[in-house]
Formats: sequence, structure tokens, C-alpha cells
Amino acid sequence: MNIVLLSGGSGKRLWPLSNEVRSKQFIKIFKKKGAAPEDGVSYESMVQRVYRQIRSVDPEADVTVATSKSQVSAIYNQLGTDVGISVEPCRRDTFPAIALATAYLHEIKELSADDAVVVCPVDPYVDADYFHCVRDLYEAARRGDSNLVLMGIEPTFPSTKYGYIKPFKHPDGSTGYTFTEKPAREKAREYIAAGAYWNGGVFAYRLSYVLRKSRELLGTDSYQVLLQNYAGLQKISFDYAVVEKEPGIEVLPYHGTWKDLGTWSTFTEAMEEPVIGRGILGEGCERVHIVNELNLPILVMGLKDAVVAASHDGILISGMDESARIKPYVEAINQQIMFAEKSWGSYQVMDADKGSMVVLVTINPGHHMSYHSHARRDEIWTILRGSGSTIVDGMEQPIKPGDVVTMAAGCRHTAVAGKNGLQLIEVQLGDEIDSADKQKYEL
Amino acid sequence: MNIVLLSGGSGKRLWPLSNEVRSKQFIKIFKKKGAAPEDGVSYESMVQRVYRQIRSVDPEADVTVATSKSQVSAIYNQLGTDVGISVEPCRRDTFPAIALATAYLHEIKELSADDAVVVCPVDPYVDADYFHCVRDLYEAARRGDSNLVLMGIEPTFPSTKYGYIKPFKHPDGSTGYTFTEKPAREKAREYIAAGAYWNGGVFAYRLSYVLRKSRELLGTDSYQVLLQNYAGLQKISFDYAVVEKEPGIEVLPYHGTWKDLGTWSTFTEAMEEPVIGRGILGEGCERVHIVNELNLPILVMGLKDAVVAASHDGILISGMDESARIKPYVEAINQQIMFAEKSWGSYQVMDADKGSMVVLVTINPGHHMSYHSHARRDEIWTILRGSGSTIVDGMEQPIKPGDVVTMAAGCRHTAVAGKNGLQLIEVQLGDEIDSADKQKYEL
Repeated sequence: MNIVLLSGGSGKRLWPLSNEVRSKQFIKIFKKKGAAPEDGVSYESMVQRVYRQIRSVDPEADVTVATSKSQVSAIYNQLGTDVGISVEPCRRDTFPAIALATAYLHEIKELSADDAVVVCPVDPYVDADYFHCVRDLYEAARRGDSNLVLMGIEPTFPSTKYGYIKPFKHPDGSTGYTFTEKPAREKAREYIAAGAYWNGGVFAYRLSYVLRKSRELLGTDSYQVLLQNYAGLQKISFDYAVVEKEPGIEVLPYHGTWKDLGTWSTFTEAMEEPVIGRGILGEGCERVHIVNELNLPILVMGLKDAVVAASHDGILISGMDESARIKPYVEAINQQIMFAEKSWGSYQVMDADKGSMVVLVTINPGHHMSYHSHARRDEIWTILRGSGSTIVDGMEQPIKPGDVVTMAAGCRHTAVAGKNGLQLIEVQLGDEIDSADKQKYEL
Repeated sequence: MNIVLLSGGSGKRLWPLSNEVRSKQFIKIFKKKGAAPEDGVSYESMVQRVYRQIRSVDPEADVTVATSKSQVSAIYNQLGTDVGISVEPCRRDTFPAIALATAYLHEIKELSADDAVVVCPVDPYVDADYFHCVRDLYEAARRGDSNLVLMGIEPTFPSTKYGYIKPFKHPDGSTGYTFTEKPAREKAREYIAAGAYWNGGVFAYRLSYVLRKSRELLGTDSYQVLLQNYAGLQKISFDYAVVEKEPGIEVLPYHGTWKDLGTWSTFTEAMEEPVIGRGILGEGCERVHIVNELNLPILVMGLKDAVVAASHDGILISGMDESARIKPYVEAINQQIMFAEKSWGSYQVMDADKGSMVVLVTINPGHHMSYHSHARRDEIWTILRGSGSTIVDGMEQPIKPGDVVTMAAGCRHTAVAGKNGLQLIEVQLGDEIDSADKQKYEL
């Protein structure tokens, strides 16, 4: 099957584990099954879990992630470079994103307009059964009995936060659907009694259908034209622009586990063990979760119903009830990004001051950073671990621990990791150290 | 006056701010009065506060700190190098410590045996009034009416943790004293009703008195002999060995504030503001204190009666009641020391792995580290900030930001800070990186 995963924006609600460059779907909290014991415990992220679940249902699944530029590095880092990525030049809600991804599949991946695709969020916390249902949606869309096939999630409580899909009978006896976003509790109860589903945001269709909608609503179905004019497109959801106006809809029900891990409360519920990373739950702790990405021990005593989360961006300690309301506090924190996953590895800021910055750079085996220069800073690398080579102003040199490479402003440079990867300390020096001061070159 | 401050051992009860190399008296939590506004808020430690209070009462006070080798660097760093230090080769309780310090004053500082000294703990949280009382003790000891003059602290509650000094009448009408350690609550009440004091561990005497006790109990009053035989001396407290057996005692009362900041509960009570360092008390916080030495924001929500403390050694989050019982948990944490104050500045471990360690080294203006070498590791310095010089195998070179200095194993080296101080990144590389692998040389 063809599947498009919508990888949404940054989240402040799971701060400090999510930030502008790391959305919640990239946080590694799920214990990896079947990891070799000698590797120790290892964890996978939401996006890795979903990707693995898709492959378990359909090993041949063709997966494309629709996302913004800022997530591309993390996706390649976590899923490898086989995955397709439809890059949105900026954020324009789900209709433009799905239109762009559909054009990408048709023109870049060269899928036939008669072929079908399922679009689903990248971050549902679900059983593998969910993806069996996703495959059924795909098959139904390919048969083409309806223009759109949706997943209806069986509600487990009268949520006021989700959208509802309510069936009704047309005079001819056929079934139609109406859509309501976030009803009041009492309305939600009524809907559930009447057989309504939650709208899980999973849509299947033949490419031709959304290409037609793109021509009708955006004036074009050309990938290049959409890409170029993307910033000018109206922000509008696929539900509002398409789904709610479409009479030819089929709904397939899903009965299994489905959770939106968007808050600390639901996120910690999905943790198999109360502590990830270095953490000790001492005397008097009840229902406390620790997620610690720092290499420091955390000792918690006498807390109840609380979450402790620590990353290079900050430390959160919150009662579970209050944790849903951290957003305004987090928005007021002005913290530079201290850690980022790149397609080739990661960087972590160790020290930052006026005129200097110290970064621990990790390059994955066989990978290399971009070939680049900086106009307003010098850099000095000291190799810590592993081996590989550097290319500085076109000249390649092998490197090993203890080697020092100095790069004056303007000098082009990259580091390439050998088969065991590479770690180095980068000292940046300059009056204006700015991540935007970077010019990339072809190698 | 002459004053000896007894600077006691390491504390795990205020972890993570105290550790094996940093006792609680070196933690900076008291807002400095009269700091220039352009310097921002700055804080002083217990030992700095006490030292300042002594100087405010007697600008000419001759202060000696009696302590172990491991605290010497921190004391010089925090008090400057004018302070006298009587270094105990190992810990042997207060009688050997006071005997050694007294011999030090007599032989090294050349005080007359008729001169007096007051010994007091380095870490009482008190008003300046306390040191007026200390001075009165000194004057009384110098007059020599009694062999020993003690401070009696007026009890504020029937504590079961302190020692009590109880007055009684001799048949001749004169006053004598008896001593009881840690009585039960009911006994404590009785003592207080009978006019007893807490024993604050403050003793004043003429040097000749303790020199005589040293000869009687330790067989010598020679500084060098005590120093050489120190490890063989019996562990015994001054109270037990001397005070409780001495009939000629005078007690001067002290009525002001007196707190032992030995637990998180009393420690946070002494904080003038609930947050030191980067910390935000969000919705639902009541009676929460944050002490944050990390350069990371801490956001706390929905906690009551709790302390949050973060340092390079770890992070503690504890209910106030439970915080008195952290010791066994902390003892189980096996964390290498990540931060240490040295006489010349500080070092902070940024990254440690098999075969390599990265350290941020800060050298105070005009100071330098010891001239030394390592047998089993190479080191590479990259200068970050400031200026000064390096001396490597006898050769001096000026240094500035961006300079790199490489030192192979065996090579002798030091760095000297200029008038603006110096910061550098030190990369250590070797199969056996060990703090004991260090040979010092004269410059």
C-alpha cells in the first residue's frame, strides 16, 4: 500500500522533550522489542514505532512523510533515507499538505492517478491492528466505490476534544455522515449513543480524487507549482475543505487502542516502565514518571501523580493535572536549542557564552555533515572518538582521536565518519555566532 | 581576636549541592549584600558569610580554618589566601583537630601560649550578634578566670538532636555544669525549664590550656609530631575528651538566631527568596524552593512543600518531609564528581566516556593551576575566553582565544590567567583516565 504520514508541528506541551526542532513524535520512549541484550535497553520514538508497525502489516508499504523542512533531518536520522519525504516549504494546515503530498506521489514517485493512498497522522499510539484497518482503507479506496474512505474510531468516552463522524440514513436507505468538531460533553454522549465514531484523521482516496480537488480549490495539481506558491495557499484543513463537503464517503471502524499522546498525562500512560534514563523513585513516590535524557542522576522522593522530564533544553517537574497547562510558561522560556538530531548524527551544545560556543558533534557511521563554511566564526575540532576524515578547502585528511583541525572563517569543511562513527568537540569562536551563518557547498 | 573555624566533613544530606569535595558550607545560597548592581545578583556561601560576619565584628580578627586537605582549594577559592589553614591529614574528630590547630597557632603563627583563641563551627546560620558573643568568649578566655569558656545557646524548642549544658549549684554556691547529648523530648523539656542551654560547640581558651591537654592525652604538643602521627590518634570529640571533665568552666549565653542548616528543610528556610538560579514556580506551587546551579531552566508546577536542587552531580526533587532521608539513596548513586572548586578557579566535566573526558577549566584572574604532568593521558587545550600564558616543558607562550595547546603524556604543563581570567576546553585522551594520575612540580 501507499501511505502518507502527516508529521505535524512542534509541540510545547511535552517540553522539555519537544521543542521547535524536535516534535513529540521523535521522542524515544517506547522500549524496543527484540533488541539484542548486549545492546542494553533501547527505545524507539513514536515515528519509529508507527513505521515499524506499518512494515509489520505490509513489508512492501511505500511510506512518504509529509512534513516541514525542520523535521527532515530527524526523519532521516530515525527512519533512514529510504523513506520518501514531501517537504512543505512552510506550514499551511492539512489540505495544502495533502494536496502537495499527493502531487509528490503522482509526479515524483510516479504513482498512477488510479492508484490509492492512505493519509494518516504520524503520532497515533495504537496496536498493529490499526494498520490492518489502514490497509483495509487503502484496498477500499483502490476499489473506488466511494471517493473517500475514512477510519472511524470507536469512542471509549464522551471526549470533548475530538471530532465525531455521525452516520445518518438518506431517504434512499444509504448511509451518509455528518461531522462535528469538539462537541460539548452532553452532545458527545448523544452522538456515541447514536453510533458515532471519533474522526481519527485517516483518509484513503485515489490520487485522481485529490488531484481534482487541488485543481478545483488551488487552481493547479502540479507539484512544482504547488511547491512554489505554497506560502500563498490558504490555511485550511482537509476535513473542512474536502471531507465535510463530500457526499461519497465510506467509513471503516477501528475498535482497538487509540491514544493521542499529546499531553504529559497520556504520554506517561504509554510508558511501559515509570523511569526512562537515570532516575530513582525514592520513599513516598506514587504514580511518578521520570524521563531523563541528561547524563545526571535524578532522585525523586515524596511526590505523587507527577512527571519529571529532563533534557538539554530544561527540566520539568509537574503535578499531572497541572502538566496540561505548561504551554504559556514554556513560551516564556527563552532557551537556545541545546540538542538537535541531524540526518547524519546529532549535536549538543555543552557551553555557550558571548564570543564562543562548545558543541559535542556525533556523526553516525558512514555519514558526514554538509560541506559548508561560516563567514563570521572560526572553528576548531578536537577528535574524541572513532575515526574518519575531514575535508577542508578541498583537501581530505584521515583523522583519529587527539587530532586537531582548525578552520578559519570562510574555510569550507566537513567531517566524514568511518565505520565506527565519529565524535568530536567543536569550539566556535566569533563575535556573532549564529546558526544562520552557514553556506553549504556541493562536495 | 584569634578564631579557629572547624570546617567539617562532606555532607550527603544536601545532595546534589554537597558531595565528597564540596561540603555544605561552600554552597552559595545567601544573597550578597551591597554587590554592585551591574554585577547582577550574586551569592555567598556559609563560610563566606561567617567570615564576613567575623570581620564586621572585628576587622583585625586572625582567622584560621581547621579542615581536611580536600577542602583547602575551596577555602582559598572562597576566602582568598590570607586565611590560615590548619590541615588535618585525615579526619580524627574534634579533639585531635583542635589540638593540631592550637599547636599550629602556637608554632606556625607564633601566638603566645598566654594568648587566647575561640574555636567555633564554620557553618552556624546566625546574626552578627553571635560574633559579638564569640568576641566576649575570647575576652573572657584571655582574662583567664576559667580554663574554658563556652557559648550557651538559648533553646527555642526541646530539640532531641543537640547537646545540652545544664547549670547546677556547687555546695559553695558557685555554678557548675553538666553535659547531656541528645536527650529524649521529655528530658529536653525538663532541662530547658531548669535553665539549660544548647551546646553550640563554641569553646574559648588560652593556648596553654589545650597545649597541656595535648601533652596529657596525646603525649605531645608539638605541631610536627601531631601532624606526623595524626592518623594514629584516637577519634575523640573535644566535648568528651576535655569539656565534660573540666571543672573550671564559664558559660556565656547567646540569645539570637542560631540554625544548623544541615538538612534541606532548614537550608531552604534560610533562603531569602524561593528561587536561586534559573527556575520558574508555575501554577499550583506552594512552599517550593529551587536551587539550580545548571544553566538550564527548571519549570515546577503543582508541587507543595518541596525542594528542587540541581547541580552537575544530579537533580533532587523531594517533598520537604522526605528530604531528611535522602542519605541512603544518595550513597547508592555512583556518580563521578562533575564539578570542583580549586584554589585557582574551577573545573567542570562536560563529557566523560571510555578513553576520553572533556572538561571546562576556569582560571581566576592572576591565578594558575599547578605545574604538573600525567603519565597515562594526552591533553589538548583550546582557549575559549580571556588571555594569559602556558608553560609547557619549561617554555612559556602567550595564549589567546582560538589557540590550541597539545600536551603528550609525560609533558609538564600549566596555564596562567591574565588579569581577565582564562577559560579553556581540556580534552583528555587515554585508556586510563584517572584523577590520581598527576605528578606535581615546582615552577
